[in-house]
Amino acid sequence: MDEISLIRRFWEPLGRAVTHPAVREGIGNDGAVIRCEPGQDAVVAVDTLVEGVHFPATIDPYALGWRALAVNLSDLAAMGAEPVCYTLALTLPRADEDWLEAFSGGLRDLSVRHGIQLVGGDTTRGPLTITIQVQGRVPSGTAMRRGGAAPGDRVCVSGSLGSAGEALKWLDTSPGNNPDVRAVLARYFYPQPRLALGGWLRERGVAAIDVSDGLVSDLGQLLGEAGRGARLDYAALPIAPELATLAGSQARKLAASAGDDYELCFLWPLALGEVPESTDEGVPLTVIGEVEAEPGVRLMDGNDPVELAYGGYSHFSGGANDDS
Amino acid sequence: MDEISLIRRFWEPLGRAVTHPAVREGIGNDGAVIRCEPGQDAVVAVDTLVEGVHFPATIDPYALGWRALAVNLSDLAAMGAEPVCYTLALTLPRADEDWLEAFSGGLRDLSVRHGIQLVGGDTTRGPLTITIQVQGRVPSGTAMRRGGAAPGDRVCVSGSLGSAGEALKWLDTSPGNNPDVRAVLARYFYPQPRLALGGWLRERGVAAIDVSDGLVSDLGQLLGEAGRGARLDYAALPIAPELATLAGSQARKLAASAGDDYELCFLWPLALGEVPESTDEGVPLTVIGEVEAEPGVRLMDGNDPVELAYGGYSHFSGGANDDS
Repeated sequence: MDEISLIRRFWEPLGRAVTHPAVREGIGNDGAVIRCEPGQDAVVAVDTLVEGVHFPATIDPYALGWRALAVNLSDLAAMGAEPVCYTLALTLPRADEDWLEAFSGGLRDLSVRHGIQLVGGDTTRGPLTITIQVQGRVPSGTAMRRGGAAPGDRVCVSGSLGSAGEALKWLDTSPGNNPDVRAVLARYFYPQPRLALGGWLRERGVAAIDVSDGLVSDLGQLLGEAGRGARLDYAALPIAPELATLAGSQARKLAASAGDDYELCFLWPLALGEVPESTDEGVPLTVIGEVEAEPGVRLMDGNDPVELAYGGYSHFSGGANDDS
Repeated sequence: MDEISLIRRFWEPLGRAVTHPAVREGIGNDGAVIRCEPGQDAVVAVDTLVEGVHFPATIDPYALGWRALAVNLSDLAAMGAEPVCYTLALTLPRADEDWLEAFSGGLRDLSVRHGIQLVGGDTTRGPLTITIQVQGRVPSGTAMRRGGAAPGDRVCVSGSLGSAGEALKWLDTSPGNNPDVRAVLARYFYPQPRLALGGWLRERGVAAIDVSDGLVSDLGQLLGEAGRGARLDYAALPIAPELATLAGSQARKLAASAGDDYELCFLWPLALGEVPESTDEGVPLTVIGEVEAEPGVRLMDGNDPVELAYGGYSHFSGGANDDS
């Protein structure tokens, strides 16, 4: 199967599975053409997944397609953007039709759910690597920036944390009938990007980041270079029942430091009043700490500081889960 | 050097080397934010380069940075778009500072030349793979589409062809003082994207494609699925003096079938009159054939058809230069 047959069989149908009105020209030219709408800004984000680094070689290709798009949609969520279109740069060792069918199926199902259209890409031969770039839009000037935190702002997180980190221990085991193992594996393989929440936060002017590398690490990024810090209440970190069952006393450690959950962490200004327990659409929100003048993220179990073995995932620094 | 240090040392300075007025937020958030200007469409294109497939492991990293951006700018040229910004998804086995310094230097020098701003990316660990996505803009509705050819349209090409293909034979040799070898290697390592020509063609409503896979193959793409074909005059293919010297009788074969030259091939409607010998800016233009009703690309040496060993580069099909 040559490149052109592959485009016709897999990518063109995927490009037709969703048609976004802002897309003027999709797959089939040297570039895609997207309308600029007055009063809108474009938001772009790109993420790469590498076999053996970001996912195990044994991954179900359907889940891989889903996950590769989900981690990018999660960046749009953190910016409060509405998805428009995406490109797929796929490097793979061989054109295995069954693999491509499953992989494109995962992409298709998530893209249909969020109305994002495939508009182009590049399929090349080499070690399995997936780079997706998503494009979304926001009303002009409303995309959230990092670094605007003020002391007293509530540090909040959506959903629950740590489940995807727990899943890393179970990747090579068959979940059998264990519903808890199935639940954490689903969190790892099928992240649910928090797009509706992102839009809800943007309308309120609340800055957010998605928890991809680990809460403490990502919160540090969100606080930015303005010199602010935060105190987090270890006991308040929201964990799912299945994580509590599987990880016991280690559950909150995972919630604080493991990545891949793709929840949103955000800074809620006091001026907005109390943080609701959930959005109108039912996304649970939890206050886990507050912004302080002193730089750094302090994780406290009552009055005792909690030490983490590492502060989140980092390439090139030999972190604990570099081989995850 | 961890990911964040690497961003601060290499990518943030690169993001400041060019600041485009349409970029509202560059590096430093979950996504970049680009203004949508009334009356403009955005054009996006993405290309991946894989070590051992698209470039030799011995490549000078400065040239690699240049080339990775150039092949993408060439897609914008083919769409007649003006460059705005780009993202860099870089997967590399280790964070070698000297390598990154040189690689980012190649990117910087070409980006400054064309005024395109780095706005984001993702640096991950793994086999060396570079995916760049460029974004440009065109006045609304003016981006050129393929497939609109009419019989009698002149098939034209800019500059000269085949030199980059010849360079493949010399990649592992030292050019020494041979100016011809130096010249073909420069064509391969430092493609000059034809952005000014692309804009000139777009203003005239002329559809173009960049010659990346090989003239015959790319022309087939440009003709599209409308069922048209073309007759090409083998003797008319423009070749550079250094290619004639190095390749002798094989020069035109390279011009017809080898890739990597990044010239533009375009279809000039009769209604526009004669094709000028060059643009106002001095880019040489050559008529090499004409569009015919019958599908297929026919390469003719006088009245004799010329058979090519292969019709251009294709991944996954075991083409002759798959290991280039």
